Amino acid sequence: MSKTVSLVEVGPRDGLQNEPEIISSADKIALIEKMYAAGLRRFEVASFVHPKRVPQMADAEAVIAGLPNQEDASYIGLCLNKRGVLRALATRENGQRGVDEVGCVVVASDTFGQKNQGQTIDEGITESQEMIRFAKAEGMIGQVTISAAFGCPFEGDVPVQRVIDIAKAMVDAEPTEIAIADTIGVGVPQQMHDIVGALREIVPVEIPLRAHLHDTRNTGIANAWAAVEAGVETLDSSLGGLGGCPFAPNATGNIATEDLVYLLDKSGVTHGVDLDRAIECNHWFATIMGRELPSLVARAA
Amino acid sequence: MSKTVSLVEVGPRDGLQNEPEIISSADKIALIEKMYAAGLRRFEVASFVHPKRVPQMADAEAVIAGLPNQEDASYIGLCLNKRGVLRALATRENGQRGVDEVGCVVVASDTFGQKNQGQTIDEGITESQEMIRFAKAEGMIGQVTISAAFGCPFEGDVPVQRVIDIAKAMVDAEPTEIAIADTIGVGVPQQMHDIVGALREIVPVEIPLRAHLHDTRNTGIANAWAAVEAGVETLDSSLGGLGGCPFAPNATGNIATEDLVYLLDKSGVTHGVDLDRAIECNHWFATIMGRELPSLVARAA
Repeated sequence: MSKTVSLVEVGPRDGLQNEPEIISSADKIALIEKMYAAGLRRFEVASFVHPKRVPQMADAEAVIAGLPNQEDASYIGLCLNKRGVLRALATRENGQRGVDEVGCVVVASDTFGQKNQGQTIDEGITESQEMIRFAKAEGMIGQVTISAAFGCPFEGDVPVQRVIDIAKAMVDAEPTEIAIADTIGVGVPQQMHDIVGALREIVPVEIPLRAHLHDTRNTGIANAWAAVEAGVETLDSSLGGLGGCPFAPNATGNIATEDLVYLLDKSGVTHGVDLDRAIECNHWFATIMGRELPSLVARAA
Repeated sequence: MSKTVSLVEVGPRDGLQNEPEIISSADKIALIEKMYAAGLRRFEVASFVHPKRVPQMADAEAVIAGLPNQEDASYIGLCLNKRGVLRALATRENGQRGVDEVGCVVVASDTFGQKNQGQTIDEGITESQEMIRFAKAEGMIGQVTISAAFGCPFEGDVPVQRVIDIAKAMVDAEPTEIAIADTIGVGVPQQMHDIVGALREIVPVEIPLRAHLHDTRNTGIANAWAAVEAGVETLDSSLGGLGGCPFAPNATGNIATEDLVYLLDKSGVTHGVDLDRAIECNHWFATIMGRELPSLVARAA
């Protein structure tokens, strides 16, 4: 296989948001700097949520103010509503670099969506459509993630058709990218092929696809490989496999950046990340966290 | 996908051999009984190696003497030389049930083979050919595993052609099964497709293929899925993801039986194992080991 895939480092947001111990803004910024040095170019740097909901994200603006001013980097701020987009826009005022991308989320489950962000599926679609139009009108990138696309912790199976219907509705707002998220890590490779195959039939080819995967049941790397095979252009991953969702029971661990890089390197897929540097970054961040990170490649090296 | 795959529980041997704390024969037997109750029918129960080399296997004969006398179970004793086969045969004397299968190993690396079992590749082939003929002449099942088929901890890459050459030589001895082992967990799905595709061209269809995978670099479950796609009939796995090889640096963890069962269940592949019972078995064995086992599904349940 000769292919190119791009990676998004979500450690600073999805990797850390579930960690009870607050990581300093300086360490979050250092994490982004080091992963940039390892070759990463897109980062989910923070989410604009209420600090009472996710205390780890209370310093979103402080982290963004300290981001390395790299021209070829793209910084994503996760926004669950229009208030979030206003905060994202504000990071770019007064000559600040700020974030480049507004990342919206539509949860493919009424129950989970209401618990996670107080929105049914239909409310999530309407809000995200408006957010994307708003962000793009203001010169930002607007993209959307369909979360719980592989299953819901409260409702169980999520029909592929529901994911397709959400994607169809979102296409109307012309997002720059559509992502599918296995938020709770229940998916298997065949599901990835089924969902991506169906998505590709209704999403215009100029809108690339991204996959966001969790390794809760050990299928994360298998699903990542299925995503590459199915033609997904971009994969989210988190240094060390940190991560989870505070509102989804047991959703522990994004797929690990180093483990994903190992898979891609050995499979002949180009991605631009240096494995050794990513492993060094893992060992450094383990000292910040005060414990070994859950990923495997950095331990086997 | 509508398929059937059979599983071999290797926890009692490969899962435990690297554990520094000696597990009692009674607990090993209980592990086999409980995994039988969960639906497993083939077990790697012990290896006939010198107790100084692998102290955990010093009670091989005691474990085998206590095996549940199930007609539909098949018990594998790992043998590295003809002395091992003699010990396997002796377990069947005097009306004892004993082991059913002699499992031979040819290491696909001169360096690793000499360190692991004092045999070059050519010596391993000759010895295993003789062992299989001997075992079959005595009414036992004789099968062979080509280990380090995906890479060697000392020599690095292992060419597919070398694996094919070993398999060709072994076919002459008419083993009942040929397995390929990613002993140190370096493989990726594309390698599995390459190796199995090449093997299927030279191994007669009446000799089924088995894959033995380690999850050292988080590719184990992805490789298992690739094996299923590529038409491998049987997969080895270990309760809780225990396991490794004492002579291969950092080769930690077979793929976990429960994690594999989760993948197969969700993928519509039939295999005969009950996930809930396997998870119960994981929780029970964690109390024996005094720590959480490395697999993931039992923690997410």
